Amino acid sequence: MISAVQAVRGVEVVEVTDRTFQVHRRGKIHTGLNMPVRSREDLSMAYTPGVARVCSAISENRQKAFKYTIKANTVAVVSDGTAVLGLGDIGPEAAMPVMEGKAMLFKEFADVDAFPICLSTKDVDEIVETVVRIAPTFGGINLEDISSPRCFEIEQRLQRELDIPVFHDDQHGTAIVTLAALINACRLTGRRLEDLEVLLVGAGAAGVAVVKILMDAGVTSIVACDRFGAIHMGREDYEADSMNAPKRWLAEHTNPDRRDGSPRSVLEGTDLFIGLSGPGIIEASDLARMNPDPFVFAMANPNPEVPPEQAGQYARVMATGRSDYPNQINNVLAFPGVFRGALDARAPAITEEMKLAAARGIAGTVEDDELDEDYIIPSVFNRGVARAVAKAVADVAARGVEPEREQPTVERAALRS
Amino acid sequence: MISAVQAVRGVEVVEVTDRTFQVHRRGKIHTGLNMPVRSREDLSMAYTPGVARVCSAISENRQKAFKYTIKANTVAVVSDGTAVLGLGDIGPEAAMPVMEGKAMLFKEFADVDAFPICLSTKDVDEIVETVVRIAPTFGGINLEDISSPRCFEIEQRLQRELDIPVFHDDQHGTAIVTLAALINACRLTGRRLEDLEVLLVGAGAAGVAVVKILMDAGVTSIVACDRFGAIHMGREDYEADSMNAPKRWLAEHTNPDRRDGSPRSVLEGTDLFIGLSGPGIIEASDLARMNPDPFVFAMANPNPEVPPEQAGQYARVMATGRSDYPNQINNVLAFPGVFRGALDARAPAITEEMKLAAARGIAGTVEDDELDEDYIIPSVFNRGVARAVAKAVADVAARGVEPEREQPTVERAALRS
Repeated sequence: MISAVQAVRGVEVVEVTDRTFQVHRRGKIHTGLNMPVRSREDLSMAYTPGVARVCSAISENRQKAFKYTIKANTVAVVSDGTAVLGLGDIGPEAAMPVMEGKAMLFKEFADVDAFPICLSTKDVDEIVETVVRIAPTFGGINLEDISSPRCFEIEQRLQRELDIPVFHDDQHGTAIVTLAALINACRLTGRRLEDLEVLLVGAGAAGVAVVKILMDAGVTSIVACDRFGAIHMGREDYEADSMNAPKRWLAEHTNPDRRDGSPRSVLEGTDLFIGLSGPGIIEASDLARMNPDPFVFAMANPNPEVPPEQAGQYARVMATGRSDYPNQINNVLAFPGVFRGALDARAPAITEEMKLAAARGIAGTVEDDELDEDYIIPSVFNRGVARAVAKAVADVAARGVEPEREQPTVERAALRS
Repeated sequence: MISAVQAVRGVEVVEVTDRTFQVHRRGKIHTGLNMPVRSREDLSMAYTPGVARVCSAISENRQKAFKYTIKANTVAVVSDGTAVLGLGDIGPEAAMPVMEGKAMLFKEFADVDAFPICLSTKDVDEIVETVVRIAPTFGGINLEDISSPRCFEIEQRLQRELDIPVFHDDQHGTAIVTLAALINACRLTGRRLEDLEVLLVGAGAAGVAVVKILMDAGVTSIVACDRFGAIHMGREDYEADSMNAPKRWLAEHTNPDRRDGSPRSVLEGTDLFIGLSGPGIIEASDLARMNPDPFVFAMANPNPEVPPEQAGQYARVMATGRSDYPNQINNVLAFPGVFRGALDARAPAITEEMKLAAARGIAGTVEDDELDEDYIIPSVFNRGVARAVAKAVADVAARGVEPEREQPTVERAALRS
């Protein structure tokens, strides 16, 4: 039997010898200088007295902050630590390693300077007002790992109050890369988005965003399920408080025929299964009842809804969220380039059109002669992806801001729930 | 006659060709990575899935954030842009170049990672609650260029609410370096702090902090002046709202004999003049009425209270805030080392004793054989200074936290005013 003290020491020993803990010592990012400050001349430019002229110029024209300060290239990675990876509500300090990792990916893949801001409040009003108050420093806000349905209202209110892009990556990053994968799966098999029957399981933030972008891209027939089954406006819990904002949005925007049933039964006759839930929802053998040559995007992490080894015999194209299988649907393909493009164009928001362009940009990096069942999505280390996404997003921004889309239900419902 | 467009183009041309503006393009700091993310193995440690174990460890013990996240070494440089350099209330965006410059100095001189946070609110309650909410990210808070008297209440309330050091540099940085200069002026001339008659002109935030640290160091006789003259509890505006919090504090803690008169008249018979105001307060010839071998610290920037060229014939030791004269009293000698020491010791606050130790640490870097009238203060580029300050501060912290000092008046008065 070991004592409590020995047990604690055991943990410490693991942390000292474990390479993952080692690389986290003192954090994973630092402040780098863009010019030296080693002489009086350096100091007199970077700091007093020279800096005063730059301050005065910005004071006369606030827009110059986008030119002469880090606002030009810096994104806040904001979280309240309520929905971190699969760990759930672990608090702001414990969320920091993820946000630092995200900041690294921003820098590595798109030369965007990003800085983690982890908040010690979970109150929607407080989160919104806090981010608004610190916004002068930043050129963009990436929301991360904020639980649903609060994430919808926070994103929408922030975007309304700020003149810089606000982007909840758990929603839109996932949606963009999912659409990119689907575009290439259709390209490979000669199908059209308009003709697909889609089943999506998982009625959280990412589910809503995936449904939105698929509809914007032309998909017309989608049924969404939670663990109780297919969601629709006729379901008995539609008016109940237990049906939260994203589910209500899904009920109002999908499944107009009010199909009922479990994921397993609704799967019949579909062309695309999108899993954003977890294992056990369906069996691999259920895939046999899908239409011929189906697409199976089983994106739950770390355990997909159906194991790729078993799904392979049924699915024409299989994608997961994992790096150890082909076709990894990974947000890092989207967010660095999305913000790179938005910052380059000084876009005040990430519009739906930019998200579509980003998905097409990712899909386009897979050449015709590379495209096959195991390669519908480029590698996360393909440096061309962020460049293609940035260009696609900036091109849309340069054409001007689209009229604001109607997105009333989620927020209204969020306020109710 | 030039048109408005031409005039604007003129400004743009200046900004394009001006080296100071050039070095400010896209800001002066960036996010650097502490490890590469170029392979799947890198990604699996810095990000998912490896990062989850680090998050879990911090979730179980929040203190581990000081070990495995940037909280270990990162200070927020927080401003609301209300008292920036000599420019005044220029707003948060225009304050950014100063805060970025400050972040550079933190990094260059003490390897402290610092990040600017400029706030779009001037409300004391909102500033306090905002900084408290973003504090999980940071290991310390450096307040900067926040106008008096709000700065007192903000600093005190933040320090009470947070378990990391909060330090208003405009107050305490100035105070520490002023005391360091005075210690060495006394060392040079064989005088004792206890015997000095001191006149301080300038009743703002820095004035209060200088008086506090001088008294903590042993100075007993101080008269403080504003532009109306000597401040004391018998002055007719003492009870009026026009006497703000710092002045009221000065009235209650200095000039017990209630000496009256203009700075010029009160200067008579003093040993040390400290100027934290501006030119025109006194004439150089007034210095002749000081005691023999006086010290003149004329620290107003860019124009000292008396020009060093004229003061030289009267003053035994002359110091200014300028880099082009000997004995520059510059905060950069203090704040990098103060935070380095506090972070190294994981001190929850910067105590009065640490500030005294920091001043003695700076003074001690001038060797006996270097010390002369033109060298009472080390160069800002002396790398030994931050090391000495850090060690002095960390040593005090290691001896344990001193009992909280009584500092009631400023805050109470601030709440009233």
